Amino acid sequence: MYESLFAHIRKFVPLSKEEEEILHSTLRYKKVRKKEFLLKEKEVCTANHFVLKGCFRMYFTQENGVEQIIQFAIENWWITDFQSLDWQQPSHYYIQAVETSEIAILDRRVTAEVCDLIPKLDRYFRLIVQRAFAASQQNLLFIYTFSGEERYHHFNEAFPEFVQRVPQYMVASYLGFTPEFVSKIKSRRTGDGKPPIS
Amino acid sequence: MYESLFAHIRKFVPLSKEEEEILHSTLRYKKVRKKEFLLKEKEVCTANHFVLKGCFRMYFTQENGVEQIIQFAIENWWITDFQSLDWQQPSHYYIQAVETSEIAILDRRVTAEVCDLIPKLDRYFRLIVQRAFAASQQNLLFIYTFSGEERYHHFNEAFPEFVQRVPQYMVASYLGFTPEFVSKIKSRRTGDGKPPIS
Repeated sequence: MYESLFAHIRKFVPLSKEEEEILHSTLRYKKVRKKEFLLKEKEVCTANHFVLKGCFRMYFTQENGVEQIIQFAIENWWITDFQSLDWQQPSHYYIQAVETSEIAILDRRVTAEVCDLIPKLDRYFRLIVQRAFAASQQNLLFIYTFSGEERYHHFNEAFPEFVQRVPQYMVASYLGFTPEFVSKIKSRRTGDGKPPIS
Repeated sequence: MYESLFAHIRKFVPLSKEEEEILHSTLRYKKVRKKEFLLKEKEVCTANHFVLKGCFRMYFTQENGVEQIIQFAIENWWITDFQSLDWQQPSHYYIQAVETSEIAILDRRVTAEVCDLIPKLDRYFRLIVQRAFAASQQNLLFIYTFSGEERYHHFNEAFPEFVQRVPQYMVASYLGFTPEFVSKIKSRRTGDGKPPIS
């Protein structure tokens, strides 16, 4: 059930059969319907989530109701709001399934315990959070450096399979296009499949 | 010499005297002159840096020469480019001392080794990288949500001591103000001390 997670962990640190069993007994498995939420604004986040299958988006809503996506997660990515998870504060974000998905849930209340039993998991999580942090900083660099058009082309080249499976207006939102432009893409989903570029 | 670092680590995980000694023998101490660089664009980052005293900024230069700050680090913060450090790729960033500073350097080539000897350090680094990642995501939220003026006031209220010690044009750059506005602040440093707000 969690084989893809164990394989992902083994890319970073060794993991014995016994440790797999400990981890297996700690995780919770969940099927998630399309558009179902793992977290909503003002809720306190209680877990980290590993995507076994499917796709999620993390976003916040601006005062004018516009949804701004700040992160996606597909297979082999973890997704959570660390600010809410670590400080047990109400979240600013929504985490929602873009497709029907399957996840492994690591609850906050058992995280320290399982990392005490398998200290290499701290190493694993350290390395993948470093990766996520670097991606977030690079996102800032892209926002400040490139125009909407340049970002769109870069994203298409870097993640062609991703662009195929996520609605274009979500990619546009993630790339920081103007809400007007995102709406424009959203409203012409029956078009030629290629969005006009801002 | 490293007492503030050991105190910081003990906020997250226990650390014995023996472990302090191991860590002490692993770290390198360095005084850094104002404006000296820890990392320059196109260099491969070789270490993580803990600020014992002073202040650093991490920035990249846009094609038009404008410097865009994406992170500051003052006492008790670590600063590095994880993308360059973990993948040994040339960096897109500069890390430069804003003041005369003192740092503890943890070299990449000894990091895994010292974390093997003191596994709790993986826990410590995991938790502080989660904090940095959350801050980076909140920075995105601020950029998308608030106007320059709102961000400036929020930043002043949240970090009053920080605003006192860093030149205003650097704060403006970090907050994503326009280059024109940053230049405007930069050119009127002899003014009333309060920048005009974009």
